[in-house]
Amino acid sequence: MTREKITLFDTTLRDGQQTPGIDFSVEDKISIAAMLDDFGLDYIEGGYPGANPTDTAFFTKKRTHRARFTAFGMTKRAGISASNDPGLNALIQSNSDAICLVAKSWDYHVKVALGCTNEENLDAIHDSVKAVVEAGKEALVDCEHFFDGYKANAAYAVACAKTAYEAGARWVVLCDTNGGTQPPEIRAIVSALIEAGVPGSALGIHAHNDTGQAVANSLAAVEAGVRQIQGTLNGIGERCGNADLTTIIPTLVLKDTYADRFETTIDREKLVELTRLSHAFDELLNRSPNHQAPYVGASAFATKAGIHASALLKDPKTYEHVEPGSVGNFRKVMVSDQGGKANFINELKRRGISVAKDDPKLDRLIEIVKEREATGYAYEGADGSFELLAHRTLGTVPEFFAVESFRVMVERRFDSNGNLKTVSEAVVKMVIDGQTVMSVAEGDGPVNALDIALRKDLGKFQSEIDDLELADFKVRILNGGTSAITRVLIESTDATGARWWTVGVSENIIDASFQALMDAIVYKLMKNRQLAGQIAAE
Amino acid sequence: MTREKITLFDTTLRDGQQTPGIDFSVEDKISIAAMLDDFGLDYIEGGYPGANPTDTAFFTKKRTHRARFTAFGMTKRAGISASNDPGLNALIQSNSDAICLVAKSWDYHVKVALGCTNEENLDAIHDSVKAVVEAGKEALVDCEHFFDGYKANAAYAVACAKTAYEAGARWVVLCDTNGGTQPPEIRAIVSALIEAGVPGSALGIHAHNDTGQAVANSLAAVEAGVRQIQGTLNGIGERCGNADLTTIIPTLVLKDTYADRFETTIDREKLVELTRLSHAFDELLNRSPNHQAPYVGASAFATKAGIHASALLKDPKTYEHVEPGSVGNFRKVMVSDQGGKANFINELKRRGISVAKDDPKLDRLIEIVKEREATGYAYEGADGSFELLAHRTLGTVPEFFAVESFRVMVERRFDSNGNLKTVSEAVVKMVIDGQTVMSVAEGDGPVNALDIALRKDLGKFQSEIDDLELADFKVRILNGGTSAITRVLIESTDATGARWWTVGVSENIIDASFQALMDAIVYKLMKNRQLAGQIAAE
Repeated sequence: MTREKITLFDTTLRDGQQTPGIDFSVEDKISIAAMLDDFGLDYIEGGYPGANPTDTAFFTKKRTHRARFTAFGMTKRAGISASNDPGLNALIQSNSDAICLVAKSWDYHVKVALGCTNEENLDAIHDSVKAVVEAGKEALVDCEHFFDGYKANAAYAVACAKTAYEAGARWVVLCDTNGGTQPPEIRAIVSALIEAGVPGSALGIHAHNDTGQAVANSLAAVEAGVRQIQGTLNGIGERCGNADLTTIIPTLVLKDTYADRFETTIDREKLVELTRLSHAFDELLNRSPNHQAPYVGASAFATKAGIHASALLKDPKTYEHVEPGSVGNFRKVMVSDQGGKANFINELKRRGISVAKDDPKLDRLIEIVKEREATGYAYEGADGSFELLAHRTLGTVPEFFAVESFRVMVERRFDSNGNLKTVSEAVVKMVIDGQTVMSVAEGDGPVNALDIALRKDLGKFQSEIDDLELADFKVRILNGGTSAITRVLIESTDATGARWWTVGVSENIIDASFQALMDAIVYKLMKNRQLAGQIAAE
Repeated sequence: MTREKITLFDTTLRDGQQTPGIDFSVEDKISIAAMLDDFGLDYIEGGYPGANPTDTAFFTKKRTHRARFTAFGMTKRAGISASNDPGLNALIQSNSDAICLVAKSWDYHVKVALGCTNEENLDAIHDSVKAVVEAGKEALVDCEHFFDGYKANAAYAVACAKTAYEAGARWVVLCDTNGGTQPPEIRAIVSALIEAGVPGSALGIHAHNDTGQAVANSLAAVEAGVRQIQGTLNGIGERCGNADLTTIIPTLVLKDTYADRFETTIDREKLVELTRLSHAFDELLNRSPNHQAPYVGASAFATKAGIHASALLKDPKTYEHVEPGSVGNFRKVMVSDQGGKANFINELKRRGISVAKDDPKLDRLIEIVKEREATGYAYEGADGSFELLAHRTLGTVPEFFAVESFRVMVERRFDSNGNLKTVSEAVVKMVIDGQTVMSVAEGDGPVNALDIALRKDLGKFQSEIDDLELADFKVRILNGGTSAITRVLIESTDATGARWWTVGVSENIIDASFQALMDAIVYKLMKNRQLAGQIAAE
């Protein structure tokens, strides 16, 4: 059976630009367009040349090799001809392959926002599309508020879509601009429009996520006959965002409901780049990826349930809707107090620690983890501390050094120039090989001072931890209130590129930080010895 | 026309517990159950008594007043009778109104995971439901993997659902356990099951968000006849999460597609509490709310597009799918024009502060807030600090007292009995009415010690702050890494029942805490004067 093509239209750089908190520079747009183009989308909408300096600069050149580089803009104003409309001419002059014209299709908006007659608006659609096509470019028309417009005045909304189609628009895109339309309405309205004479092969869908239905509405439109989907990377966009292409694409490619009937330019081979693309985009935006994102999230194939975890290990297909590798993601089975014994053994194995199922030390380890997690430790997010605890319980980890005492002081006072100043200082007293060593350091804050003091002079181990770096630090207050327990998580890294998280819990934040810092250092020393083969896997 | 009821089943405390990174304590569960119960959901599933110490402790008492308090657990094992199954008996003994039994409905899982025959599994379902009903409790059955099971062996999946229903289960819940089923499949399979004899009025849907379709699948099931929806607050849950009740409920209540035919225990009046509930839950989890969340996100009704923004101000209905206030959210126009200013004036008015639109002090205040928010302050969550800043900028707040310096020390050392001990001590030097006062205090941690020292001797103001209490303390590390900025939020309360949040930001956690503690005290003194009529509203 031949499969029909679903065309993918990316509006990350145009509608995505409306996301609160996101502001692309020209350089950002160039990098993102290259990422999208490499991935293989059909259309990349770059922005609105003429509307702002960034977009005008971005459209001084064609920025894609494969995808159709698309400029967004408005249809001509009523009362002047297409050739005399400066906005429309700027669009036509821009270095784009295609032009996506936004047109009103809700009569109320024609009256209130444009202040012209319904007929004048139809003429503006017709003449603008003609002008684009005559200039040798492909024309698309975004019918703004199509679904709300249809509910208010069906005949007029249909007339707008038909006018665009008959004037030569390659695609007539039905926009749920306010994002409130539900899938059954999408199916019914799209079917009615096709019935009225605009073929599905010329129709697109542009959905927003205001009711959490952007993906569902896009696919409901496809079900009803639409053959182009507009969306954005990671679902960015105005208000609650646009339809998320990182969700829609794998569903189209991997789910029989769609894959049996449709194909896209992204095939199974290309799809394995999806997770990397999604994370690279978040990197560029300098924001942490959504762990719970479908397909590409760090938790999308993570399991912490005991029963599920053991079944998952027996046969992954029973608990995974798709193979994680198909989208370039990974399976993750997490340690936690819900984990069963099989899960535990497997987690240890992944870390190179093998232990017999009936070893009493294993029961002891499970018991310690449960006890500690009950008091606030979270080993699922602290693999370094977990590994250290496992090695300590199942085998032996040398006591490399002991901290006899420490003192941390924070002082806010006026300095000699009369300026208010806050100083943090830490003093650490430790014993290394029978030798007592004292270190003192100042830092940005008390934890930073303690970190520096702890790693300042580790005697014969000092050269081993020179490349140790604190990469991230998280604090969570458990149970709230005045008698709060504090959990500190620290991420460390070193010259080998390894990264590990360690945890500390105490009613005293400095003490919790101290535990996590100590684990971070001892983990590093243990890891060095494992690499050197001095500690055999227990 | 009478509307049919859609029953709402919350599994935040059970399936939500499977969310990577979320670990509820018994106290967390008690608070969340109270929030859910107050909001008015029909069922609150609390966890799996017998499976772990937290859930066992949580079920030592009934924790709801209105909602049916529901325990989750497994059907009896094959080969022993229901009355001899310790797991099932622990469930029946728990202080619950209803029991939700999870049952395999995919024959492959029956074989691989349970290792029993298909018949034995049907018997287990039948006998377990009977045992629950005979013990005087309501029985629900979660048919695990129902949709995947149906696709593999339709007759057996249907037999499982029918067995549960005929044995007396009030609800048979169809679970898309792996989250990969698409809405058209949901509609078709639910219809077939109803056709086969299990009425929609006894059916529930339990959807996961692995393809971004949890909301759509839940509503597609309702379309096909199902009358119970299971979901969680803010869509937490295993992997990509469960169906998000904060999205589904407003859609059911506000969208004609559903509201014309259905009703829920949450009516329009109750719905205005939704945004507050969603944010309070994130607060409890100490995580930042998702700004782009449908209905409840801070960006859900935010607009930054120039054209949209001006049309929005002319007539909000043209660009909003529902009225923001209907879910307790706010409209936000993010442009530095009259619209932005009007918003600010509104925010001040809500706090009893009136200011003229052209007052230059207002521009100054907007500027300060913008500058400070750019460095990490979050006034949205710190109304006390915001009000204080507004009063300070627009009018005058007396300088009640000045802290000249403070010193905080944390020491970990061996005490006289040789036990390791951590001591926190704070010394504060302040000037009150020309008098220098020094206070010293010990605390559980450095912030607690500083709090006690600050409030120990406030001279002539001491009697005014005797009823001041620190109710909550939250820490968030902004931007991560070693050069981290720390934001501290403190909630205070007093004998009048008032609660206010204050904020501090610094690279030094003690300094950030100090700022928030100072604001908390000064806010209290200012409030006392407002109550006494000494500061007129500026």
